Amino acid sequence: MNGVRVAGVGLTHFGSHPERTGRDLFAEAALNARDDAGVPLDDVEQLNVGNFAGSLLEGQGHTAPLLAEAAGLDCPATRYEEACASAGVAVREAVRAVRSGEADVVLAGGMERMTNNDTPETTEALAIAADELFEIRAGVTFPGAYALMATAYAEAFDVDEETLKTDLANVASKNHDNALPNEYAQYQREISVEQALDAPPVAEPLGLFDCCPVTDGASAVVLVSEEYAADHDLSADVAVVGTGQGTDRMALQDREYLARTPAADDAAAMAYDDAGIDAADVDVAEVHDCFTIAEVLAIESLGFYEPGEGLGAARRGETRADGELPVNLSGGLKAKGHPVGATGGSQIAEMTRLLRGDHPNSDEVPDAEVGVTHNAGGTVASAVVHVLEVAE
Amino acid sequence: MNGVRVAGVGLTHFGSHPERTGRDLFAEAALNARDDAGVPLDDVEQLNVGNFAGSLLEGQGHTAPLLAEAAGLDCPATRYEEACASAGVAVREAVRAVRSGEADVVLAGGMERMTNNDTPETTEALAIAADELFEIRAGVTFPGAYALMATAYAEAFDVDEETLKTDLANVASKNHDNALPNEYAQYQREISVEQALDAPPVAEPLGLFDCCPVTDGASAVVLVSEEYAADHDLSADVAVVGTGQGTDRMALQDREYLARTPAADDAAAMAYDDAGIDAADVDVAEVHDCFTIAEVLAIESLGFYEPGEGLGAARRGETRADGELPVNLSGGLKAKGHPVGATGGSQIAEMTRLLRGDHPNSDEVPDAEVGVTHNAGGTVASAVVHVLEVAE
Repeated sequence: MNGVRVAGVGLTHFGSHPERTGRDLFAEAALNARDDAGVPLDDVEQLNVGNFAGSLLEGQGHTAPLLAEAAGLDCPATRYEEACASAGVAVREAVRAVRSGEADVVLAGGMERMTNNDTPETTEALAIAADELFEIRAGVTFPGAYALMATAYAEAFDVDEETLKTDLANVASKNHDNALPNEYAQYQREISVEQALDAPPVAEPLGLFDCCPVTDGASAVVLVSEEYAADHDLSADVAVVGTGQGTDRMALQDREYLARTPAADDAAAMAYDDAGIDAADVDVAEVHDCFTIAEVLAIESLGFYEPGEGLGAARRGETRADGELPVNLSGGLKAKGHPVGATGGSQIAEMTRLLRGDHPNSDEVPDAEVGVTHNAGGTVASAVVHVLEVAE
Repeated sequence: MNGVRVAGVGLTHFGSHPERTGRDLFAEAALNARDDAGVPLDDVEQLNVGNFAGSLLEGQGHTAPLLAEAAGLDCPATRYEEACASAGVAVREAVRAVRSGEADVVLAGGMERMTNNDTPETTEALAIAADELFEIRAGVTFPGAYALMATAYAEAFDVDEETLKTDLANVASKNHDNALPNEYAQYQREISVEQALDAPPVAEPLGLFDCCPVTDGASAVVLVSEEYAADHDLSADVAVVGTGQGTDRMALQDREYLARTPAADDAAAMAYDDAGIDAADVDVAEVHDCFTIAEVLAIESLGFYEPGEGLGAARRGETRADGELPVNLSGGLKAKGHPVGATGGSQIAEMTRLLRGDHPNSDEVPDAEVGVTHNAGGTVASAVVHVLEVAE
């Protein structure tokens, strides 16, 4: 099995880009990754791209050849769609292609173009990550679905409403703090716990600041074999050492229990086993906080906290930048933004920057050697976990 | 590298199933494949599914976990979208997963639910396989795009209109003949060359019988490692020995030349090299005849004919059931039907049946040892080729 290195990463600014197309955004991220890697496009043997709702939001499917062309690539190109975990699976399959020797250089990432549609259109487009027959027709949209999960969590662990809301507000406030210095972030501004608590309700118990925004953006990473990195004298000092994927029942009603995310449990177990680590070895994490409750569920699935213990982590300061295990130093989906099909690639890009020391928040984790990314689809019917390490 | 065997295949009837959902169709195909393989669902380690337009036609994305659940699978599940080659890439990545040892048992296939939408909806949904900015906005739909390719072919090789139309009508008539005994085919009925020539025009020079139908259906194949097949005493006598993928510019206007399909040239070259064969070794082929001209372009890209020589193959009888190299003994997309996201898996299923001797048309190719499948996306901006062999 070949070792896999991150040779370079590229991002666009996450935010609102009304004048730009999805292909244009992806080209920027891909060329940034190329420049960062110092790998010529001609060496790229495969393109794996994540995109979720382009069919509905841009009227565009068959995305992979289009993005290959936009990025100046001439190689087989494949689109992965796994709702908000689309780029996660694109990266995972890229890792496996390099490991197996199928390719020495794979470009993986994703793109979503979301802000040019009106809110009902965007809400309907995002809803297709849920079960059309048993959820969408009943009127469920994602804020409502995660509100149900938050309520179930509070019931399962006997948490009162004030504690629940305050602890979740601390997650939001933390991630906004983290986004402050991140030049790619949609919201480089602080929000206080009080502001989060005072925000208008979206779906009880979730308020406006419990929800990630709608975002345009793209991400790309260049993954190479260790041998290629050595032969080409690349400074590719971050390795992908573990990958895992899990799948759960699609509809909330079909699950036994809503206060846990078993797909992420499975993905984490698989990735840790693959990497030969356990949760205690992790120094820093980027997790899928599409809603504040999702971060809580993520850090429990990743094994950082026992079930019911993750809720207070941000309030207690443990997952803050100066805490024991900083979570979402990028700002997370909450403050950095969530261009759905790009997010899984963005997490790899941000973690790579954190580990190699050139992220604006790298100073918060100067000794970090092991980072984990957690990317989820829908109400975590899909999950992808990766383990990155500073290479010896 | 582990050898890859087809342990079992499953299909639904291709046609119109107004009372059934996509998940229901896929479950049928998957359970048929399980029964055919004699492999318990618990042994399946990964599900790869192709689906193209579910977001638009069923209001459903995030298809993979839903189809895993419908089929009774509990394993990581990933959706591939590559327009009409969606299941082709799903199978290709399954082959690579088994080869690399990532999994011993992968279920791969696809599904499309198309006939419940009205014709304008379906036409718009299919159009997203073309370039939204430079083709769809200009009014191009797929019959028109392939008509341009047919016209370009005729011009490039100096073919008069009557010859062009007659030769294409022979392709349609041949594939309908082949579908006659195929219990899965949408159209188990003959059409004569004269009927095809007399059919109403759709986009000159293509008439109604030059175009494949709109179809509901699903496909599934169980791919296993040689070792798993031996350990479990499976009768898995067909091996997947080659896989290749190619990508071209998306929009026709961006291509230098419309009378060839270079993505398929690349995919075929890669698959042949992978299998250690060349075109002369191929005994039987299933190709992507979404339009009759597409079959002509396919058999040229696969190297069975020099450019310009493929057009007359069906008329000359060479690609007919009793010809030297029978093409589309299943009936092809033209007569068997084309549930877009399922087609690439259906081709593998049909080729497996042909090679192991239990296809109703197996008698036409009693000595066939090497079969090739060719699955294309859009106007062949994507192509996937597989080589199957009767195992020693």
